[in-house]
Amino acid sequence: MNVHEFAVASLSDHRLFAFLDLAGTFAFAISGAVAAKDRNLDGFGIMAVAFTVACGGGVMRDLCLGVVPPAGLSEWQYLATALCAAALTMAAGRLVTRLAHPVILFDSLGLGLFAVTGAQKSLLLGHNAEVALLLGMVTAVGGGVVRDVLLNRVPVVLKREIYASAALVAAAIEVAGERLGWTSSWRTWLALGACFTLRYLSLHYGWNLPRFSGRQEDQPDEGRPG
Amino acid sequence: MNVHEFAVASLSDHRLFAFLDLAGTFAFAISGAVAAKDRNLDGFGIMAVAFTVACGGGVMRDLCLGVVPPAGLSEWQYLATALCAAALTMAAGRLVTRLAHPVILFDSLGLGLFAVTGAQKSLLLGHNAEVALLLGMVTAVGGGVVRDVLLNRVPVVLKREIYASAALVAAAIEVAGERLGWTSSWRTWLALGACFTLRYLSLHYGWNLPRFSGRQEDQPDEGRPG
Amino acid sequence: MNVHEFAVASLSDHRLFAFLDLAGTFAFAISGAVAAKDRNLDGFGIMAVAFTVACGGGVMRDLCLGVVPPAGLSEWQYLATALCAAALTMAAGRLVTRLAHPVILFDSLGLGLFAVTGAQKSLLLGHNAEVALLLGMVTAVGGGVVRDVLLNRVPVVLKREIYASAALVAAAIEVAGERLGWTSSWRTWLALGACFTLRYLSLHYGWNLPRFSGRQEDQPDEGRPG
Repeated sequence: MNVHEFAVASLSDHRLFAFLDLAGTFAFAISGAVAAKDRNLDGFGIMAVAFTVACGGGVMRDLCLGVVPPAGLSEWQYLATALCAAALTMAAGRLVTRLAHPVILFDSLGLGLFAVTGAQKSLLLGHNAEVALLLGMVTAVGGGVVRDVLLNRVPVVLKREIYASAALVAAAIEVAGERLGWTSSWRTWLALGACFTLRYLSLHYGWNLPRFSGRQEDQPDEGRPG
Repeated sequence: MNVHEFAVASLSDHRLFAFLDLAGTFAFAISGAVAAKDRNLDGFGIMAVAFTVACGGGVMRDLCLGVVPPAGLSEWQYLATALCAAALTMAAGRLVTRLAHPVILFDSLGLGLFAVTGAQKSLLLGHNAEVALLLGMVTAVGGGVVRDVLLNRVPVVLKREIYASAALVAAAIEVAGERLGWTSSWRTWLALGACFTLRYLSLHYGWNLPRFSGRQEDQPDEGRPG
Repeated sequence: MNVHEFAVASLSDHRLFAFLDLAGTFAFAISGAVAAKDRNLDGFGIMAVAFTVACGGGVMRDLCLGVVPPAGLSEWQYLATALCAAALTMAAGRLVTRLAHPVILFDSLGLGLFAVTGAQKSLLLGHNAEVALLLGMVTAVGGGVVRDVLLNRVPVVLKREIYASAALVAAAIEVAGERLGWTSSWRTWLALGACFTLRYLSLHYGWNLPRFSGRQEDQPDEGRPG
């Protein structure tokens, strides 16, 4: 979520990662803005939820790492990108609907990239592999969890689809690669590729993680207490 | 939310701001206690929600600024004020109902004051205007957001009324005034006045920010997934 | 929640407290995993909620104390214990049902122990009694609050039973004992005993804190806006 994490990559990779970082931020913000608009929030609510999805995970990570103020709050690119996504959703809902495919594409790339940057930042600050894995995953999915909590529903990453697991795979590749001495660019590409492939295959084939409650449906249960 | 932020103001202003700080805390806590009581929480729950609304925004701000422990947890005046508000709500519900008008008054003043102190504290610690704006708003509305999340509903500031926007205006005036070299007292008064006027006019005329979902009603949707 | 807090206790007590710390973590994680399974979350969701209940309170405490990264994220024992509890819940639901009694036992012990460690850690870092009381309680009940927020219901500690109050009593005994110069082991035992007794009596006799809304039922209200 922070372009400065990529300083060790080659210059051309650095530019590409910086682009993907903002493209992922944009895709995350679109998912927040669309969900907020569907729940009938007002203009402020749509902007707030868009920004929360885009930067919430990175803010949680930075708080856990003692990096204050969190990069998501202090670097204007993220706020500007999130507000653009919110404005586009408000002004041109049909265009956003038509953009569904590129949005899923960049959301999947953002997922992997945020997991990698979260893990990288933790390792750069000298923390252990467990912290890097957990905070990589938090960076990638934390914003979506807060979005669902604010919109008063059980976070979707806890219920279905291969999403947090794909982020975990990306963070694990980053951490393992760092320990094995791979170059920064290589392990980032590998992590991104694995996360993206896993996410895309799971969407295409409708893969889900197993459940254990004996019920197959979950829709009627949502929004009510257990 | 922290009286020490006002050290640069004149002595009489300092006393007035310190009074408004606690009066705002009290009004915020009343809003939490009333909502918790309406949801049938027990005595502990009412006190916890009252304290959360009063101090939650300031705690979030201090965590983002690296000020630990947060002032809301370490200075007894805030806890004592919140517990008094909760006790009053439990013991004298009718009195609190009759106090609705002064409570709205101090809530509006608290809103502006908390936005100003949040922005001020960020600037004093050397952070940029974006951080000051965002954390000013978080200080003012963060507690109310946590209240609504705990009470299992979509935060009201995301849905209707000019509330967070009024806080944002107060924070923006504070930040702009600081950059333009206005004295601390002047910019605080101007920010308070603007926030209060905007909030009061919006309540009086029923102003809302626009929505974009094509639906006009939101009540039937609350509590259910999008 | 962190065994290192007990360094000042005698060696045999230290080992016992370290055991209770992990046993309490396990019991907390079981409560999260069972609730997540009941809500039909997938395997990842069950593990995430189990870990959240086990470590969420300690993470909040550490963030408020400026201890980064939080111990719950950096010490593998807690993650491993929580994942074992989640795996057991997924693989052997009936066994977990039969274990209900020992789980309540260790949950009550964990409640008192987490309150004591939270208060202790705050005092060791030089903070005042108010911070120690509040963060002791947050350590003990914070994870359960986040569990209920993620599962989209009003946190049960705000609604019924003597639970947070028992944690508060444990934290208060720890703080008072430290001020009165009692040895670390004695005050910890006293706090644990008081919390456990209070919790057990309240469960046995169905004690609740009073409510003030004039309604006796709360079930029909859950999951709907106030």
